[in-house]
Amino acid sequence: MLTPKVMKYLFSNLYGSFVLDASLQVIDTHAFSSLQEYQQKEKAEQKLCRKYPDLKPLPEHKAAACLANFRDTRYHAVLRQQNLELTRQELKQSVHEDQLIIQAIATIGELDKSCNLLGKRLREWYGLYCPEISHAITDHERFIELIQSKKKAELLKELKRPSSMGADLEKQHVQEIMLLAKELQQLYMLRKEHEQYLKQVMQSHCPNLLELAGTTLGAKLLELGKGSKHLALLPASTIQLLGAEKALFRHLKTGSRSPKYGILYQHPLVQQAEKELRGKAARMLADKLSLCARLDYFKGEFKAKEYREELEGKLRGLK
Amino acid sequence: MLTPKVMKYLFSNLYGSFVLDASLQVIDTHAFSSLQEYQQKEKAEQKLCRKYPDLKPLPEHKAAACLANFRDTRYHAVLRQQNLELTRQELKQSVHEDQLIIQAIATIGELDKSCNLLGKRLREWYGLYCPEISHAITDHERFIELIQSKKKAELLKELKRPSSMGADLEKQHVQEIMLLAKELQQLYMLRKEHEQYLKQVMQSHCPNLLELAGTTLGAKLLELGKGSKHLALLPASTIQLLGAEKALFRHLKTGSRSPKYGILYQHPLVQQAEKELRGKAARMLADKLSLCARLDYFKGEFKAKEYREELEGKLRGLK
Repeated sequence: MLTPKVMKYLFSNLYGSFVLDASLQVIDTHAFSSLQEYQQKEKAEQKLCRKYPDLKPLPEHKAAACLANFRDTRYHAVLRQQNLELTRQELKQSVHEDQLIIQAIATIGELDKSCNLLGKRLREWYGLYCPEISHAITDHERFIELIQSKKKAELLKELKRPSSMGADLEKQHVQEIMLLAKELQQLYMLRKEHEQYLKQVMQSHCPNLLELAGTTLGAKLLELGKGSKHLALLPASTIQLLGAEKALFRHLKTGSRSPKYGILYQHPLVQQAEKELRGKAARMLADKLSLCARLDYFKGEFKAKEYREELEGKLRGLK
Repeated sequence: MLTPKVMKYLFSNLYGSFVLDASLQVIDTHAFSSLQEYQQKEKAEQKLCRKYPDLKPLPEHKAAACLANFRDTRYHAVLRQQNLELTRQELKQSVHEDQLIIQAIATIGELDKSCNLLGKRLREWYGLYCPEISHAITDHERFIELIQSKKKAELLKELKRPSSMGADLEKQHVQEIMLLAKELQQLYMLRKEHEQYLKQVMQSHCPNLLELAGTTLGAKLLELGKGSKHLALLPASTIQLLGAEKALFRHLKTGSRSPKYGILYQHPLVQQAEKELRGKAARMLADKLSLCARLDYFKGEFKAKEYREELEGKLRGLK
């Protein structure tokens, strides 16, 4: 049996898979009854391909013309509905560990801000009651712990002060100060808790970055680099200057000296380097961090430990 | 018995009370053994007065010459010691309810700042999980309460949403968000608690100001007015512009329009007035607030209620 070879095209959209003839008229249909079927459209397409062995995918330049088949308004409500549902599902799937990490590190930053603000206030308020203690202990957390655990008289004894310049406030007033102290202590605890959580998430999501950069710095890099994908695609020189954007653009605009590091300044390897070598250390570190980001994003092996040792060796050699 | 009337002077310092002759030599001494005796020096002085009936207080212009008597270095250690102790006691007594109020209102302000900062963060973080809820409920506190009390599915049902665009996060991640929510709720509770305390303190310390201005506004006035004494001495026109210093100095410097109110803008009487009458309302309110501040500082009667009624009547008449 010899039939003339007529061109047939395969086209799928939210309604179903369609077989079109050379003039783009629908000659066969496999309708989808639900979004799930659309998401597994390969199955329907294979079925149609078996039925019409010479089926070809619709070339792109003919797609617009083909859409004329679906101009009928009875399709529109379904199309809208299904499209909404599809977008919703895609939005849902777009939430990635990246975003969780970014939110967590931002929360930690804001908790720090609040703790400092309220900590300074607590010191001032408690200072009316007993200024000597605030003066003797500079660390906020230890200060809060101390004033909660012991009474003023005991604390003064420990600090070897005979008496306090602070007023003898009534119990009601001191209680109010202690409420603030207690709350502040909980804020500090929450910060620690969040940091632990962050470490856990990063352990599974970006172990290389975590190992080489540490919890907070690694998360901040992800935040500034706008997620692990974008970070992995950044050149090492950009990673070196993340967080120093202001100085960089000032350099480009006015010709002032270029910055040597952004938030990488916080890294112990940069901190420990001598002052003249810090720029060099930051460059080498950024190099390795960029490799780490790529390893993490493309699910490579765990190499950060080697990198760290290599860096430490090199930096020791520079001195 | 006729003795020639020789001038005798009485002089007291930290060491004791002294009787001096005309050439400012010490002729009799009542030494103080402790600071308490110095603080009750009137007793010693009366005793000496009885002994020398023609005793006169040392005139000020002779005080410098009299100090020559105490040049001996054996006095110095005692003087230093006693002076330190005295200063310490005075500092102690200088803590006044004013300062407690100022600290409390500043704490409330800073708690507000922290709550807003962390509240916005919580919304963004929780938005990854279920953006619909944050969208439907604008009040931070109610939002926090809701997400803590019910599960995502129940909340969506209440809002009549079939499904959420948010990701189905694992329990571990949601828990972390809830920790922040819980902490934030406690911050809001602490704020309320502090406000109650503030009201209590103001009730006994400045009832008039509290009645007419309300808790937060009254406390802020005390803060901006640098304590109840200073506030009582301020003219009403200054009270009207407390908190609008920037606009006032811009007006004085550049001749721009003068501000009509500072923080008094927050007062319901000013808020409720029509826009053109707000300046007038603020002026009248400042007038009465200034009276209130004076009544409070000089321990006058409670008149704020009358003032409030008077103001309300006048403002109604203006319309």
